[in-house]
Amino acid sequence: MASNSSGGSDRQRVAQQRLRIITGHLQGRENGDSTIIAAECKAEGSQTDVSREEGKTVPRRRQEIMKWNGWGYSDTKFIFNNKGQAEFTGKRYRLSGMIIPALKEWFEGTFGASMQHKSPAAPVLNSGAVQPPTLNEAFLEELKSTGVPFSHDAEDRVYRAHGHCLHEIFALREGKVGRVPDMVVWPNCHEDVVKIVELACKHDVCLIPYGGGTSVSSGLECPPEETRCIVSVDTSQMNRILWIDEKNLTAHVEAGIVGQDLERLLNESGYCTGHEPDSMEFSSLGGWVATRASGMKKNIYGNIEDLVVHVKMVTPQGVMEKSCRGPRMSTGPDIHHFIMGSEGTLGVVTEVTMKIRPVPEYQKYGSVVFPNFEQGVACLREVAKQRCAPASIRLMDNEQFKFGHALKPQVSSMFTSFLDGLKKFYITKFKGFDTDRLCVATLLFEGGREKVLQHEKQVYDIAAKFGGLAAGEDNGQRGYMLTFVIAYLRDLGMEYYVIGESFETSVPWDRVLDICRNVKARIIGECKSKGVQFQPLSTCRVTQTYDTGACVYFYFAFNYRGLSDPVHVYEQVERAAREEILANGGSLSHHHGVGKLRKEWMRETVSNVGMGMLQSVKDYVDPKNIFGNRNLL
Amino acid sequence: MASNSSGGSDRQRVAQQRLRIITGHLQGRENGDSTIIAAECKAEGSQTDVSREEGKTVPRRRQEIMKWNGWGYSDTKFIFNNKGQAEFTGKRYRLSGMIIPALKEWFEGTFGASMQHKSPAAPVLNSGAVQPPTLNEAFLEELKSTGVPFSHDAEDRVYRAHGHCLHEIFALREGKVGRVPDMVVWPNCHEDVVKIVELACKHDVCLIPYGGGTSVSSGLECPPEETRCIVSVDTSQMNRILWIDEKNLTAHVEAGIVGQDLERLLNESGYCTGHEPDSMEFSSLGGWVATRASGMKKNIYGNIEDLVVHVKMVTPQGVMEKSCRGPRMSTGPDIHHFIMGSEGTLGVVTEVTMKIRPVPEYQKYGSVVFPNFEQGVACLREVAKQRCAPASIRLMDNEQFKFGHALKPQVSSMFTSFLDGLKKFYITKFKGFDTDRLCVATLLFEGGREKVLQHEKQVYDIAAKFGGLAAGEDNGQRGYMLTFVIAYLRDLGMEYYVIGESFETSVPWDRVLDICRNVKARIIGECKSKGVQFQPLSTCRVTQTYDTGACVYFYFAFNYRGLSDPVHVYEQVERAAREEILANGGSLSHHHGVGKLRKEWMRETVSNVGMGMLQSVKDYVDPKNIFGNRNLL
Repeated sequence: MASNSSGGSDRQRVAQQRLRIITGHLQGRENGDSTIIAAECKAEGSQTDVSREEGKTVPRRRQEIMKWNGWGYSDTKFIFNNKGQAEFTGKRYRLSGMIIPALKEWFEGTFGASMQHKSPAAPVLNSGAVQPPTLNEAFLEELKSTGVPFSHDAEDRVYRAHGHCLHEIFALREGKVGRVPDMVVWPNCHEDVVKIVELACKHDVCLIPYGGGTSVSSGLECPPEETRCIVSVDTSQMNRILWIDEKNLTAHVEAGIVGQDLERLLNESGYCTGHEPDSMEFSSLGGWVATRASGMKKNIYGNIEDLVVHVKMVTPQGVMEKSCRGPRMSTGPDIHHFIMGSEGTLGVVTEVTMKIRPVPEYQKYGSVVFPNFEQGVACLREVAKQRCAPASIRLMDNEQFKFGHALKPQVSSMFTSFLDGLKKFYITKFKGFDTDRLCVATLLFEGGREKVLQHEKQVYDIAAKFGGLAAGEDNGQRGYMLTFVIAYLRDLGMEYYVIGESFETSVPWDRVLDICRNVKARIIGECKSKGVQFQPLSTCRVTQTYDTGACVYFYFAFNYRGLSDPVHVYEQVERAAREEILANGGSLSHHHGVGKLRKEWMRETVSNVGMGMLQSVKDYVDPKNIFGNRNLL
Repeated sequence: MASNSSGGSDRQRVAQQRLRIITGHLQGRENGDSTIIAAECKAEGSQTDVSREEGKTVPRRRQEIMKWNGWGYSDTKFIFNNKGQAEFTGKRYRLSGMIIPALKEWFEGTFGASMQHKSPAAPVLNSGAVQPPTLNEAFLEELKSTGVPFSHDAEDRVYRAHGHCLHEIFALREGKVGRVPDMVVWPNCHEDVVKIVELACKHDVCLIPYGGGTSVSSGLECPPEETRCIVSVDTSQMNRILWIDEKNLTAHVEAGIVGQDLERLLNESGYCTGHEPDSMEFSSLGGWVATRASGMKKNIYGNIEDLVVHVKMVTPQGVMEKSCRGPRMSTGPDIHHFIMGSEGTLGVVTEVTMKIRPVPEYQKYGSVVFPNFEQGVACLREVAKQRCAPASIRLMDNEQFKFGHALKPQVSSMFTSFLDGLKKFYITKFKGFDTDRLCVATLLFEGGREKVLQHEKQVYDIAAKFGGLAAGEDNGQRGYMLTFVIAYLRDLGMEYYVIGESFETSVPWDRVLDICRNVKARIIGECKSKGVQFQPLSTCRVTQTYDTGACVYFYFAFNYRGLSDPVHVYEQVERAAREEILANGGSLSHHHGVGKLRKEWMRETVSNVGMGMLQSVKDYVDPKNIFGNRNLL
């Protein structure tokens, strides 16, 4: 799996990298290291669009490939075609170009929606709705001489004014635009960021770091009361892998790289980080660090706090970084943990050294059907107790099982539908599973082939003790494949009066069942009391297992036809759901973060003293609130 | 392995515990929870010595069982007996009561020491050498009404004035006593600590938390310039397991408990934390949290940051704790990481919820002989890369291998010495290993019996690829057994002009060999240039493996006869060794911490911004520097 260097220039490049890595370990190196990198950056920089090199995904002008008022790529969406069938357009995904026969009926049945009742979005962004930019001329003058690309273009600014909370997308679809950044800058490297931050401090400009734009915590929302010039620091072009260290199995990467590019580039050398958040097509390394991200395969690769070896963050007080890349230290409180979770309030993360692993030899999906959710949870708890969880194991409730069925693409083969029918007969009639109670766990194993097969046997044996039936690789693979297309579904819903959101928590094992039951019931009750006409979709899955508890992920969606202020109703229900989560022993968030959306619960979450500590750090690092997204505190 | 409750009172107790645990998960619980605990605490409290209950080790008057000027139990030490043989006195250890035939020769040969050249300690503590206590009458008056036990006794105060750095023990042996606490208090529970901290803030009294007294960073040293009354907050009597939660596999424990008691008590219910630092006989849970402790079996159980689920710390600003016991969260920067590593500068850790695991079914030791250190390191690196490290794997260099041999107890059986001789013949003559180059790795496997045997095979197969020969369980077991007696050896050395210390670092894999070679050479060179007469013992072992590097542990000792200021020479050599470590890419510390001993390197370790953050937290939490041990910053 190790990379083979061939050719003089490759060898030279590898030798230079090796030198950089070793000097990186040794005292008194940093000047040398930064000089090399800055020189390279200036050489490549200015107006060339570096993203197109080496297969990088995100262009400076995001509008070239991404939607302005919905999720993901412009060329990809769910639609109901001329024949009234659900279809997934585009060419990027396995599901692309396919008909999904059961989706329309499921959608109409679940939400009481109808093809006749349309709630379309404003077709284009009306630049006139965007406030003219507040400019800081002194800042702009000095910025121009740095060579860092920038823009005041209305569209560029709107693109960076939001994440993907429901209320943000709903507003855009209505053509409503609130406070947006006044300017966008695209640093190409760490030194560019240092200059930008220096200038912002000098001229009292508000900086909001922007990675992948996938925040679901209102983290990217511009505070409406902000009167200073707001500059969106878009890191997407600061996206190189600076070196790969095969001896220590680490890679040093610029923080603007997005997950899909990072993995693809590392794969070329036979490595991976294995960090695969559902947002990985678009979310950035810096964003993961700032929000304490979690990935699907954390059971093997760890969450972001396990993956990070070294972080560089540019703050108003200067560059913050440890001097050493040792694997684990006792040198006072771990300052990486002051950076992780700071959600853009303290500075810009520019470079990260991450662990890498050889790409696994073998991968195998799987699935297990349980007679009911309780048995499924008990099985996951036992798997966690025996510390034999696969790379990924997720248990969806009965509603999600049915939802998953509705997303099955049209099967071209009669044989496959026959098989499916057989399976269904076996499970329901022969084994006596109730289709309204059964639920499914999807599994992914990775590693050496022999170990994987052993591991698989161990997990299925445990599942059997809880009434679980192995249900094949296909169901497992499809479950994971759907992960990346689910986010596109909300946009379809919003065309037909259906709005929804996902939210998550982490909770001790003995609270899992109560939390799932109570929160789902609370959502239904709150919707009813607030006049929602048709019972909402209220569903959950156990999406990660830990020694002492689990991550639970909820979907909640409803038909808002007849409501005068649907977003307000939505917000009330979401708040009630979070109160229910907290009252049942769940956390404020497992991985989405706090942003502005969940600030109101921060004090009770970390205690007064904890709040005071966080505030004292903010006051020291950023006394003028240059990093003014107003998240967390 | 689960505990079986039988009998009405047991069931009631378990039911009450269960109620406490569940209310602990649910919102709005804390008042209720604290009330129950405080009530119990007051009932048991006042002057009864709770430590004697339930097999707790540490009495309030430590002098009843522990040395005043050396390591460990009073009844245990290495001596040279009438016949001039080395002997290990007492009855507490496997080695106790045994003759160690080869030790004298090794000691004399390694250090150029001699039985004729003695440097005995002052026989008893001269209470006259202890400054009269600086009392704060107002504080004392209010303290008396709390019922918390206290003392102004000189001996009690001296016992808590130090850890186990060389210079601290050397000074005590010379009868020298510097600044010591003016008073000792023994809180029995969290509420006692709350009162103590409130009073200290009110009356401007300096508090120094004292757990097990095993600090090797000068962490417990009282700042000589401190003019306020210094109160040592001895947590050793605050040592109960408050509840065990078998559903979530956690235990909620008072922070004064020492490692051996914690494990013994949990074992009674079939559980363990698996946290086994070398100091575990005496070090406390609160101390582990405050210093970011690491344990021998971290490969299975994790280091302290992996074990902690919930922490309560009493600070001048109030009690700091999270509201939730969820397994992993994204709620801003993780405040547990503001507590861990704070080394007694912010408050007193009072209660900790830790992960527990079922006691492993099976344990097996092992050892491997490598032809040289380089091959051994390469093997450990490969084991780490394949992520198949046993519970513990340690590689000692050739000097430690010989040292280990010198510590072999007298073998009563001729057959065993015959076997040893055979092994030696096989390894040296038959396999061609050079006794001056070979080194040994000791291994410990734990888990289900079948898995252990599989795991063992995998590791030995890897070892074989690096020229390693399996050398039996006995050598492995003995290596680990020696862990707990090594600390007693320094006291023997100090009777004969030999002083020494251990120190450690963590370092990326590609720097391990260089660091080992360079640091050992630097020590030898510095000793020579400072007039040390006889070449020092300078030896190391790789004591932990990680994905991206290792922990390396050094021993350094020398004969100081002929030097006018041996401690000063020692300090210069130690500083040079640390500079060498840092210059070679090693960290300031893997687990011993910073204390006052390594403060001078903190700024370069965490950067200016990092220092500023730590200082800002300190200034907020403790503006009057009540927690005035002056560690870290």
